[in-house]
Amino acid sequence: MHLNTFSKDVYVSRRKQLSETMQNGLLVFMGNEESSMNYRDNWYPFRQDSTFLYYFGLDISGLVAVIDLDNNKEIIFGNELSIDDIIWTGPQPGLQELAQAVGVQKSGPVTQLVILLQQAQKSGQSIQLLPPYRPENKIKLSAWLNTTLPGIEQFISVPFIKAVISQREIKEAIELEEMHKACSISADMHLAVIQNAKPGMKEYELAAMAESIAMSHWGRVSYPTILSVNGQVLHNHYHGNTIQDAQMILCDAGAETNRHYAGDLTRTTPSGKRFTGKQEELYTIVLDAMDHAVSLLKPGITFREVHTQACIRLLSGLKQVGLVKGDPEEAVANDAHTLFFQCGLGHMIGLDVHDMEDLGEEYVGYSDILKKGTSFGWKSLRLGKTLQAGFTLTVEPGIYIIPELIDKWKAVNKLGDFINYELLEDYRHFGGIRIEDNYVINGTGSEKLGKHLPKTLDDLYAARG
Amino acid sequence: MHLNTFSKDVYVSRRKQLSETMQNGLLVFMGNEESSMNYRDNWYPFRQDSTFLYYFGLDISGLVAVIDLDNNKEIIFGNELSIDDIIWTGPQPGLQELAQAVGVQKSGPVTQLVILLQQAQKSGQSIQLLPPYRPENKIKLSAWLNTTLPGIEQFISVPFIKAVISQREIKEAIELEEMHKACSISADMHLAVIQNAKPGMKEYELAAMAESIAMSHWGRVSYPTILSVNGQVLHNHYHGNTIQDAQMILCDAGAETNRHYAGDLTRTTPSGKRFTGKQEELYTIVLDAMDHAVSLLKPGITFREVHTQACIRLLSGLKQVGLVKGDPEEAVANDAHTLFFQCGLGHMIGLDVHDMEDLGEEYVGYSDILKKGTSFGWKSLRLGKTLQAGFTLTVEPGIYIIPELIDKWKAVNKLGDFINYELLEDYRHFGGIRIEDNYVINGTGSEKLGKHLPKTLDDLYAARG
Repeated sequence: MHLNTFSKDVYVSRRKQLSETMQNGLLVFMGNEESSMNYRDNWYPFRQDSTFLYYFGLDISGLVAVIDLDNNKEIIFGNELSIDDIIWTGPQPGLQELAQAVGVQKSGPVTQLVILLQQAQKSGQSIQLLPPYRPENKIKLSAWLNTTLPGIEQFISVPFIKAVISQREIKEAIELEEMHKACSISADMHLAVIQNAKPGMKEYELAAMAESIAMSHWGRVSYPTILSVNGQVLHNHYHGNTIQDAQMILCDAGAETNRHYAGDLTRTTPSGKRFTGKQEELYTIVLDAMDHAVSLLKPGITFREVHTQACIRLLSGLKQVGLVKGDPEEAVANDAHTLFFQCGLGHMIGLDVHDMEDLGEEYVGYSDILKKGTSFGWKSLRLGKTLQAGFTLTVEPGIYIIPELIDKWKAVNKLGDFINYELLEDYRHFGGIRIEDNYVINGTGSEKLGKHLPKTLDDLYAARG
Repeated sequence: MHLNTFSKDVYVSRRKQLSETMQNGLLVFMGNEESSMNYRDNWYPFRQDSTFLYYFGLDISGLVAVIDLDNNKEIIFGNELSIDDIIWTGPQPGLQELAQAVGVQKSGPVTQLVILLQQAQKSGQSIQLLPPYRPENKIKLSAWLNTTLPGIEQFISVPFIKAVISQREIKEAIELEEMHKACSISADMHLAVIQNAKPGMKEYELAAMAESIAMSHWGRVSYPTILSVNGQVLHNHYHGNTIQDAQMILCDAGAETNRHYAGDLTRTTPSGKRFTGKQEELYTIVLDAMDHAVSLLKPGITFREVHTQACIRLLSGLKQVGLVKGDPEEAVANDAHTLFFQCGLGHMIGLDVHDMEDLGEEYVGYSDILKKGTSFGWKSLRLGKTLQAGFTLTVEPGIYIIPELIDKWKAVNKLGDFINYELLEDYRHFGGIRIEDNYVINGTGSEKLGKHLPKTLDDLYAARG
């Protein structure tokens, strides 16, 4: 069995940095278990917890790690295979061997962890958890800590959360290598869709094509694929439609490398050789907003500002088409853009496609001084805070024509000074366009992650052949 | 949104039959929820509970259904989408519309279910559950029934379990159609592996090829694919090896149709154009045992007997090669076959690849009079009971040369009268062979499910080109 970890120094050094930040307490890292599909032993593909992977590297189910800062100990807990297990699984490295592969000196059975936690509680040692998101881990923690399920909350440590985020958000060189790889595989997934899409095909046939490319690199998709002729439906995982002439196919899909780094790309492709005139017009507006947003990326700017500028650019373009009226800047200040672009311009990405979302968006995407908005549109902007070199993030502007939303706004002539509702009726069944790439912030600006993937009309049409 | 259910009469009639069997009580059917991968909102592909699918058809997360036999009511509980949700998901059918699509008259929010359960507890009505296998459903049930997690056990109803099994184990014509489809897609998955495998490829490249075929039919794999040059490792989901000359590639993979019926096929393919001499010899023995087992399938025979006869046939073949000594029947009576064939000849299959395994193997595969064995080998035979027309099952004999097991037996000369340990050393690194197809028991014998897939040496070699 090949463990597929980085060198042990990587993990030793990450834990050293965390330990120096935290200084004391008993830090608990819950690894994930297998997840059942339709009965206990029929499993989804195993996905290890990302923070566990970051500090302990072991892509194996049923492990828990602790860093006991008060007693200067690191221990990985798990259960050894029996001789019967080995007959079914082949010879496997023992727990102690696994621990040493990632520079951890001690290991033990889970029963010892329970004793350790109970002793810590008795002695008043501070037990610190990250927010659990898997129900089986909640059940285990509640039993081990002798508390109710809501009672786990008292052990969740904001300083621990913040310390982890401050490390994980700045990508190391070896991580950027994985991110480039994830984005290049993702680009190949999209290229297959761009080159093969045609009227008469089922959406699921194209999705299968894309996903098989992720798998053929020993990885998987980093999130459920969106591949739809109804790109305006933002949370759309239905793949049952037959592709028709003159439609747009929005594909939002990404690969996860076998070290679990994520790519997250979107392309919108004409079902025929070319977009229709209307489609070309709005595609160009989205692309222009994207280029503008990317040109602004650099350390020191808030992503909230980049989002705002991209929205202004979107509305400027829509004004030229006649769908928007008045001053684009004023329109955005009044949230008029949220009729067309209801979500955020991007989010952090890394070991998770929404990186560290389990730790809380208020810490990952915002800060003590910059809080997330609560109004429509702004509440969906996952990233707002000041960019730093080493951040990896998505940029994904779009235009989504959502009939239900138009009807809701039009009924009260909402922001009627900025919206041309009459002309908008002509676009009622237009659909949705999104373009998305991933970037790393460097010293002076940004660099796109992964290989080239057609994005301009010329490139896209050339790839369509 | 296309619901992809059978006609509503199918579900009405299934529930009618169940209600007639059970007569009273409050039957609770827990639908599944979305399963989180690396943070709450990043989901694995949704998999509905199979019993919920069987009686209520709705392939949608977060539903619970009840049949209240004492008050002659059927109700589906779930939560309606808000207008905000609809903006993100597009217009969706309401809960009442969903319920009516499967012939259920009443629906309501989950809060009403909680009240119903509490009233039932107060009034002493018998609340009957099937065994929950998802941790989130255990958490919900424990809250709703005001009990501890182990306390849920008291509500699990053996009569309910048996009633469900007695229905689900006899496949209807519309189900057999789905099973044929599942097995035909599975056959295409295997054909791709047989035709494309060659030295130098990675196992995961072949696995990706197979899985993409399942997806290209709007389905998925029905269980984690085994594709390995180490076929002797029975629970082997590692796909990282490079295929070498003169190896055998064991692929155990199956499709799940978009109505969630499973196929489960295995083929063992030479990495080159032909097997080696030794490989051919043992392949032929497995194939002969399989043909013999299939010839015995018919209503009235126990699958335990079919398994026993297949084992005798395997050992007869191995005796001809010289690996086994003495009388094959006596050897099997002494469990000598378990050195080569450690698992069972097959299992029930249907909506689950191990059909109804969540309900308990003692009820699905055995009966009040025929209990499962507890010794090595026999404890892994999932199906033992008397076959009936309408059963669908797998037949999957194999020979697995497991060095760790040989060493364990040889050290004490276990069953030395039957095993030629000296010759066995020549086979120490032989690997493993399995051949598997799926069958439906009919009035007089059995019928193979799905399209033809090469299995004889001639067919296999012809497909290798």
